[in-house]
Amino acid sequence: MNGKERPILPPENLVKVVLFDTFGTIVDWRTSITKEITTIAARKGLTDFDGDAFARAWRAGYAPGMAAVTAGKRPFVSIDVIHRERLDAILPAFGLSLLTESERADLNNAWHRLSPWPDSCAGLARIKAKFMIGPLSNGSLLLLAHMAKRAGLPWDFIFSSDMHQAFKRDPAVYQNAIRLLDLAPSEIMMAAAHNDDLAAARAEGMQTAYINRPTEYGVDQRVDFAATSDWDIIASSVPDLADKLHCPALS
Amino acid sequence: MNGKERPILPPENLVKVVLFDTFGTIVDWRTSITKEITTIAARKGLTDFDGDAFARAWRAGYAPGMAAVTAGKRPFVSIDVIHRERLDAILPAFGLSLLTESERADLNNAWHRLSPWPDSCAGLARIKAKFMIGPLSNGSLLLLAHMAKRAGLPWDFIFSSDMHQAFKRDPAVYQNAIRLLDLAPSEIMMAAAHNDDLAAARAEGMQTAYINRPTEYGVDQRVDFAATSDWDIIASSVPDLADKLHCPALS
Repeated sequence: MNGKERPILPPENLVKVVLFDTFGTIVDWRTSITKEITTIAARKGLTDFDGDAFARAWRAGYAPGMAAVTAGKRPFVSIDVIHRERLDAILPAFGLSLLTESERADLNNAWHRLSPWPDSCAGLARIKAKFMIGPLSNGSLLLLAHMAKRAGLPWDFIFSSDMHQAFKRDPAVYQNAIRLLDLAPSEIMMAAAHNDDLAAARAEGMQTAYINRPTEYGVDQRVDFAATSDWDIIASSVPDLADKLHCPALS
Repeated sequence: MNGKERPILPPENLVKVVLFDTFGTIVDWRTSITKEITTIAARKGLTDFDGDAFARAWRAGYAPGMAAVTAGKRPFVSIDVIHRERLDAILPAFGLSLLTESERADLNNAWHRLSPWPDSCAGLARIKAKFMIGPLSNGSLLLLAHMAKRAGLPWDFIFSSDMHQAFKRDPAVYQNAIRLLDLAPSEIMMAAAHNDDLAAARAEGMQTAYINRPTEYGVDQRVDFAATSDWDIIASSVPDLADKLHCPALS
């Protein structure tokens, strides 16, 4: 098959590798960043600090920062650079412009320390027992490796945006992952909480699994409250995806 | 520092990531391949089969196969392709030309199933507790991921030759690893049983650790019976490297 036709076998019989979006799908960036910035704000004596608003404001620079690269307006830069630029931009509005260079550098690494959703690790362990698993993420290599090491995410390998020199949803990312795996696209499943990520993966012939994370963005959430297409699997959590891929419980 | 000067701190104070050669340094390809081919030869009724000679003959196609790519005589191909071409070339001389396509494909994957030297996993676990670790190998991604999964090699991430589109000792491999890690070269240590691999890493400013594997090639071994330069660390095994990097014993 040419990889763009829809497969006729059920996913669990065809898939060899399951790739996961990380920010929002596997880790809960909003709660993690809120916790880190709230600690810092308290240390600086700020009262009534809205850590959740800070986390959402920081994240709001993520898509536009990558879009500039994808549109060719600037050369590829690490997501760490995009995070840092947005951090410097929003600190004054939150009364934190006095943070030193080393405080800013450490705070920027909060994205390396994101904690998983409570169900992620147990679900990944089950899926790993049957398939090869790895992130297909916009994170940098050290960000993803630090995150995995700290959170116990049991990846078999890591794909980082630096390897592709591109960010999702640029088709180059999915194409490069398929090339590196040296598999038919239909042997690879993309799992994500974002419908547009899955649409881009399906366009390259990959199988797709939606994992619902309707609280990811909190009050900023505008999309991805539910699956918006007939993805190959639609799941409510990583363990639910494991169930639907017929992965046994681990003893 | 510009990364090419020699560091003045001891390695354990400077290094953040330790990269490992795999074939020969972490896994014992000769014993592993000998075991697989001996089983096949017995099944095919061959008597007095020299499995060790077969393993060494197969491996003898490895360096020339990569050299053709590095010299620009052919475009980059996966190491799996190089392994397969050499396999097809040597089977007749060993009385195995009747192996079917599916038997050949499965046998070629013996390189995905190599077993570690007895000391490797325990040493890597100690080094992983203090540093980020990954292979910098000529293997393909799925080869290295399968090998790690089966053998329990606890990599934090995997660098495969497909990611670099080049094979060691092409300087592009070391340069690309440094770029992907986004660290100073002196913060990265290359560990290998091959002096020329370390020389190439040092040329890019990386720190170097020699691990002695004087039986890797058996009767074919011509070089690498000992360190031939003042590498930053010279070790007799992976646990000895862990000792010399001041990695505590694990409880």
